[in-house]
Amino acid sequence: MKTIATLEPLTTRLLEIQRINSAASLLSWDQETYMPAGGGEARAEQIAVLQGLAHQKLVSPEIEQLLSQWIDPATGRALEQPGDGWDEPARSLLREVWRDFSRAKKLPSQFVMTLSRETSLAQQVWAEARKQDKFAMFLPNLRTILSLKREEAQYLGYKESPYDALLDVYEPGSTVASLRPLFAQLKARLVPLLKRVMDSTVRIDDSMLRYSYDQARQLEFGRLVLIAMGYDFERGRLDLSAHPFTTSFHPTDVRVTTRVFEHELQSCLFSCIHEGGHGLYDQGLDQRYYGTPLGDSVSLGIHESQSRLWENCVGRSRAFWRFFYPILQQTFPHQLRGVDREQFYAAINRVQPSFIRVEADELTYNLHIMLRFEIEQDLIEGRTQPDELPGMWNRKMEEYLAITPPKDADGVLQDVHWSLGSFGYFPTYTLGNLYSVQFFEQAKREMPHLEDEIAAGRLMVLRRWLEQKIHRWGRMFTPDHLAQRVTGSSVSPEPFLAYLEKKYGELYQL
Amino acid sequence: MKTIATLEPLTTRLLEIQRINSAASLLSWDQETYMPAGGGEARAEQIAVLQGLAHQKLVSPEIEQLLSQWIDPATGRALEQPGDGWDEPARSLLREVWRDFSRAKKLPSQFVMTLSRETSLAQQVWAEARKQDKFAMFLPNLRTILSLKREEAQYLGYKESPYDALLDVYEPGSTVASLRPLFAQLKARLVPLLKRVMDSTVRIDDSMLRYSYDQARQLEFGRLVLIAMGYDFERGRLDLSAHPFTTSFHPTDVRVTTRVFEHELQSCLFSCIHEGGHGLYDQGLDQRYYGTPLGDSVSLGIHESQSRLWENCVGRSRAFWRFFYPILQQTFPHQLRGVDREQFYAAINRVQPSFIRVEADELTYNLHIMLRFEIEQDLIEGRTQPDELPGMWNRKMEEYLAITPPKDADGVLQDVHWSLGSFGYFPTYTLGNLYSVQFFEQAKREMPHLEDEIAAGRLMVLRRWLEQKIHRWGRMFTPDHLAQRVTGSSVSPEPFLAYLEKKYGELYQL
Repeated sequence: MKTIATLEPLTTRLLEIQRINSAASLLSWDQETYMPAGGGEARAEQIAVLQGLAHQKLVSPEIEQLLSQWIDPATGRALEQPGDGWDEPARSLLREVWRDFSRAKKLPSQFVMTLSRETSLAQQVWAEARKQDKFAMFLPNLRTILSLKREEAQYLGYKESPYDALLDVYEPGSTVASLRPLFAQLKARLVPLLKRVMDSTVRIDDSMLRYSYDQARQLEFGRLVLIAMGYDFERGRLDLSAHPFTTSFHPTDVRVTTRVFEHELQSCLFSCIHEGGHGLYDQGLDQRYYGTPLGDSVSLGIHESQSRLWENCVGRSRAFWRFFYPILQQTFPHQLRGVDREQFYAAINRVQPSFIRVEADELTYNLHIMLRFEIEQDLIEGRTQPDELPGMWNRKMEEYLAITPPKDADGVLQDVHWSLGSFGYFPTYTLGNLYSVQFFEQAKREMPHLEDEIAAGRLMVLRRWLEQKIHRWGRMFTPDHLAQRVTGSSVSPEPFLAYLEKKYGELYQL
Repeated sequence: MKTIATLEPLTTRLLEIQRINSAASLLSWDQETYMPAGGGEARAEQIAVLQGLAHQKLVSPEIEQLLSQWIDPATGRALEQPGDGWDEPARSLLREVWRDFSRAKKLPSQFVMTLSRETSLAQQVWAEARKQDKFAMFLPNLRTILSLKREEAQYLGYKESPYDALLDVYEPGSTVASLRPLFAQLKARLVPLLKRVMDSTVRIDDSMLRYSYDQARQLEFGRLVLIAMGYDFERGRLDLSAHPFTTSFHPTDVRVTTRVFEHELQSCLFSCIHEGGHGLYDQGLDQRYYGTPLGDSVSLGIHESQSRLWENCVGRSRAFWRFFYPILQQTFPHQLRGVDREQFYAAINRVQPSFIRVEADELTYNLHIMLRFEIEQDLIEGRTQPDELPGMWNRKMEEYLAITPPKDADGVLQDVHWSLGSFGYFPTYTLGNLYSVQFFEQAKREMPHLEDEIAAGRLMVLRRWLEQKIHRWGRMFTPDHLAQRVTGSSVSPEPFLAYLEKKYGELYQL
């Protein structure tokens, strides 16, 4: 039986590439957290050099030669000789390296560096444009990035839509054709559910979330929850950034960020829990496989399922607050003295169409994604031009959520993704929502006392389950295979919709 | 006339190498400031990969081929054809690239990576050993590093002493033979001066420096002084680290660190000024030359001259405190109410043999360096073994300063340098002290009102002078040539000794 040990000449090279990529990730983390304003241009070039190098090394003749010994270049499958097969980890590793290699091979290194440089720069322009509420300031960069991403889709190749080539990068196997029915099913039940909620006579008061909350104490509480979740601060950090994110340089150095506003208690709180969910995934990857696909997360959809599971299924549940609400009350005794646990639970689950995706409730959230999914298709397929975006955005907001953003900063300029060139990324958020409920329901089936554990503040039991079922496997299985292994079925909107209908049906007495 | 433009195929490659090196520097900065404890091993490997890559690229056949078109490999001089010479920047650039290339060429890339990895790891062991006051814990790493550095000296080659090969890395042109007479002259006048000071009947009270000072306010004051010096926070940061240092990733991103102790007012204050001096040098380098030797600092001795000039000639002068003492008093009104400016000036200039080099006064400081210079020679030349170090250290402390460290943490374990493999680095501190006074005296000659400017808080006039005379030239001139250009003579102990004898003669009424 041939094992990963057989692949040592390959894994040594992959390890070097991973270290270069990890270095580039630290440069990006620093750009978002501590870099002085003047350092942006030099930083963009430094990251571009590292990403260019990593790319060159991946598509090098040495790696191609190694792979061609073991893999059928036509199918990407490991070559088997009778009586001398590969074990499953080795076969998975080859499959996934082939995936990365063959995709990278299609992109010229020069293109990779240009894209890296342009996105680092565009990100800084976008931040300023959003601050000044000037879409026109960002438009030239957006045009450049869009044109590069359309070029990328041509390099990568696709059967039906160029957008498929980009979707597959973030969520292996996903296509416009597979996502459209999911979104259609969601729309068919979410829009009526939203209408019933809005028509309900129940009025939820969430004004207490906007009292004044000391920022240092908010952060302290966020840290406390992260520790309870099992996020290891010996192998991680919590910092501030304009937009919360998680990044990892190795399972022993996984960093999360948050933001904190005096008058928005839920912002710091839920971004800590959300990013903590991402952080647990990255801390839970198998260190022995660092540098290989088996030591990497399987897809953005699965990654997002971890953050949303913790943020929503746990962090917005009654069970969670049974334990944590008394601590939150002690942390903010004046603000929360007169607010009982049930009122607080209702407040953090209030449904209200709003402009900003990351602040959306669980019900309207996927409508925000649907809007972006449709716009991205139109952009990548060339039906829409970047200058038409503000109008298009506002019309769709009106259509899905019956509200119109008062300014572009709260509309089309709100997300960092397009400046990063991350077209095709948004749909993974919706996949993450669907997976999160599917996984959580499975966890409850396997651990009937899970909610009691959560209610007692013992979150580690859930963390361990996720680690065993999902984190430790890296890219051993495809996302779909993983979902089937863990829950017995592929991704489906049904558990998610049932969960929302039950939750809001009860909360709004529908 | 051939110019730097002629060298474009070379400078493009150098720029890529510099960007890799800058990325490695950010990884090191992060290691010392924000990296979680668990991340150390992975980080050591990441830095090693980047440094190995940068080394490989520098010694690549492409660069060798380019250089051999323009340079005589025997002498390192630019080849001149009649009527078609190089201008001075191009000639300097070639000279310095040749210096870097020919040295790097002598080291196998594998050796560079091993040294990088071992020093990253040793640094972490050293920090722990110092904390626990256990020299034995650090000894195995020290043995490894020493043996690697002796190997490096063999690779690099030398005429008289293997230590010369290491000295030359930090201070081009310096050798044991050139440094010994400098140290002898210093010893001949510093030891008697110290004796006279200690025998003086003048007693300086510095107890006010050990009152309780709010740490945040100390940092605020440090920032204020940095701003007054002209350190640009749009292109820099001030962070905390166990040992203050300065690092630069580009002239637009130069970072300094400090440390702050509640009961040691001078620690944060003078490390801010000291590192600020380093920071001004790096911010003052010419951006157009980034990536080439002309955009790099000329030597560690000259670099240290900038930090010591600001720390001592400026920061420990009466003129400086004429402006800043009232502000310091306002910052700490309770602690400094009864202390007048002259008392404060005396306190920060009190001479007192002490264990820790970085806290030493200007008089005893070079005796600390002399001790290290002698020990390093013995280690590199093989006359002393690492396990003999604690005894040797303590004997020399007794001989030069008449004190014996109570523990190794305050003795042989106090400096990070050996863990970093920086043998040959310490003498540049003494050179920096000598240069600092030599430069400052020259600045006063050229700007007779300099002290009045300083006394009015207008420090920018000095910063501009240093930038014009020193910073902007990078490695255009050798350190010795630069000193001659700026002051009319090579480095000499005379101005430094005269400065100390005057300063302490007056303070201690000798």
